[in-house]
Amino acid sequence: MFELLKVDSSSKARLGRLTTPHGVIDTPVFMSVGTQGSVKAIDPRELREMGTQIILGNTYHLSIRPGMEIIRAAGGLHSFINWPAPILTDSGGFQVFSLATIRKIQAHGVEFRSHLDGSLLFLGPKEAMAIQRELGSDIAMVFDECPAHTSTPRELRAAVERTVRWARECREQPRAPGQLVFGIVQGGTDPSLRELCARELIATGFDGYAIGGVSVGEPEPEMLRAVELAEQFLPIGQARYAMGLGTPAQLVELVARGVDIFDCVLPARVARNGTAFTRKGSISIKGGAKKADFRPIEEGCDCFACRHFTRAYLRHLLNVGEILGLRMLSVHNTRMYLRVMEDVRKAIASATFAEFRREFVANYVPTQKVLLARAAAADR
Amino acid sequence: MFELLKVDSSSKARLGRLTTPHGVIDTPVFMSVGTQGSVKAIDPRELREMGTQIILGNTYHLSIRPGMEIIRAAGGLHSFINWPAPILTDSGGFQVFSLATIRKIQAHGVEFRSHLDGSLLFLGPKEAMAIQRELGSDIAMVFDECPAHTSTPRELRAAVERTVRWARECREQPRAPGQLVFGIVQGGTDPSLRELCARELIATGFDGYAIGGVSVGEPEPEMLRAVELAEQFLPIGQARYAMGLGTPAQLVELVARGVDIFDCVLPARVARNGTAFTRKGSISIKGGAKKADFRPIEEGCDCFACRHFTRAYLRHLLNVGEILGLRMLSVHNTRMYLRVMEDVRKAIASATFAEFRREFVANYVPTQKVLLARAAAADR
Repeated sequence: MFELLKVDSSSKARLGRLTTPHGVIDTPVFMSVGTQGSVKAIDPRELREMGTQIILGNTYHLSIRPGMEIIRAAGGLHSFINWPAPILTDSGGFQVFSLATIRKIQAHGVEFRSHLDGSLLFLGPKEAMAIQRELGSDIAMVFDECPAHTSTPRELRAAVERTVRWARECREQPRAPGQLVFGIVQGGTDPSLRELCARELIATGFDGYAIGGVSVGEPEPEMLRAVELAEQFLPIGQARYAMGLGTPAQLVELVARGVDIFDCVLPARVARNGTAFTRKGSISIKGGAKKADFRPIEEGCDCFACRHFTRAYLRHLLNVGEILGLRMLSVHNTRMYLRVMEDVRKAIASATFAEFRREFVANYVPTQKVLLARAAAADR
Repeated sequence: MFELLKVDSSSKARLGRLTTPHGVIDTPVFMSVGTQGSVKAIDPRELREMGTQIILGNTYHLSIRPGMEIIRAAGGLHSFINWPAPILTDSGGFQVFSLATIRKIQAHGVEFRSHLDGSLLFLGPKEAMAIQRELGSDIAMVFDECPAHTSTPRELRAAVERTVRWARECREQPRAPGQLVFGIVQGGTDPSLRELCARELIATGFDGYAIGGVSVGEPEPEMLRAVELAEQFLPIGQARYAMGLGTPAQLVELVARGVDIFDCVLPARVARNGTAFTRKGSISIKGGAKKADFRPIEEGCDCFACRHFTRAYLRHLLNVGEILGLRMLSVHNTRMYLRVMEDVRKAIASATFAEFRREFVANYVPTQKVLLARAAAADR
């Protein structure tokens, strides 16, 4: 299913091709997040036009609303949301442990209360896989426990043990035709736990491996270290997915560390704050400084927003609360991520990734928040 | 500028063609409302694809935000919002009298406080025309006084006198190249005031005539009567515009009364409530009854939403607050209005308007609100 086409000579960056029931994906790839069956503010035509190869849907959210009865009646998630290309579904583990009120962690899953209406629900390996089978996603994820980055060593070990046990259970469940299943390596920044988790999952045998327990509030250096710790044990011939990451510069750095697949809510989230990603870092479009700035969001960008509208107009739209402003920032930010991945693939293919990476990271000015987190981590 | 192509034999319905600096408009026509420089939730490409011929911009709102300095620097409204086709601009009169806190009505305009920040502003015939000249709209409207439908006869007369005087003043102001200027007939439901206003405006001489003082909270029969009262005095060879109206069935009835141009916020407003317009009346897409309804919003509709999505999916999107739901309802409702106008034009051209009108109005079930207002008016 995964074909490794080329490995960079200067780093662990890889060019690959992942075959799924709904199409072939060129990696490294960025997946747009469509948690509730819609990539926020963007329609499927726009997604295809901007080069989206695969989107992410969420088991927890979709199984609560609209509920599986409706998605089943619609003939699966692709048909329900009218998206003909690949979909990866999260297992719901992350949401159960972060959004829901947990009542009891049991041997075969978690009893919890819905974050919406408090109703009592149960999700475990068996349930998560059954839902993903019905959703009919191209790639299903195992049901894991994603511990907080503030967990004690004891909690971390328990989470890894459960994750491994649950992954084995997931492996045994029936799948949708052609559906791939990825394991998720947990273990925080503990080298021995990351190794243990990776080895156990590989022994169980999955179609690809994700690195979880990152993007949970830890500073950037810890995140990079966690990915490195896990990555070294992963089989070179299978796809690797770093869950929930990151800024554009982080994505380039993670590609260099051997990651093939990404998903991140940042393009949509910063759009809601009136912020746009560019190759030089993120910029606010909302501020007064843009009020008579008749340039596109980013010179040279080929997205719909940059081809049609000026910063001044978008700033006005954001300022008066017109939805088109949010839409266009979402379009630009998503296309920006996709374009970075396109350039990454071109650079690996043409053996210029080292140069591309150096330039990209040098030009990209991280936000104050990223810088502060880096400094805080360096101080420890 | 206006070419009358055909008059219906069964009614006053007319087929026409209005030539403006940014293009030729086939009438009867529906204008989408882009108050703040954006038709709510819809982008210019979508507008063009669905057959939008002309949009409406608003002098009051645009002159406050982003302000004329920025629109001037952008090279006018068309360029600022990237809309290459015709634009009609409202004069701001309606907003000054409905949104702002009026400080003083003076001989040459109104001193008022902005509804946004309370700043003291002045708008009169001269100012409104100067702003519209800078906006560069294809059709500018005179600065009028739109009285409430609860006005006393004395207030109504004063409003008509001011409207006539201000219209003359507007007539003398410089215009953008090729810009048309329309007069606005006021007078409520007073036959003599409607006549007086119409005659004075016609004597002054405009490129077209609007019927104002409708859609101000009056019941439907009063609205129809006000339009009839004004229409009878208007020159047959010029375009007539009924401001701020109405439901789809009302539009058909107004076409039958000799109106050529319409604008209305209803397509966008009901979309925000999760409601869709169909040929059989408006329907709620939000309700539980649609949760497993896999039909399009309206069978036979050619809009983007109906070609791509089911009621069940749109209901889910509205239910979880995803913007795509609101977008698609806005697209459908706007296309529905445009399609009604296309069918009206075809019916007039093929001499089948009487039949079309009868069927349309018979099939269209008005909302409870419209029915109640009709009953209340009949009771008087």
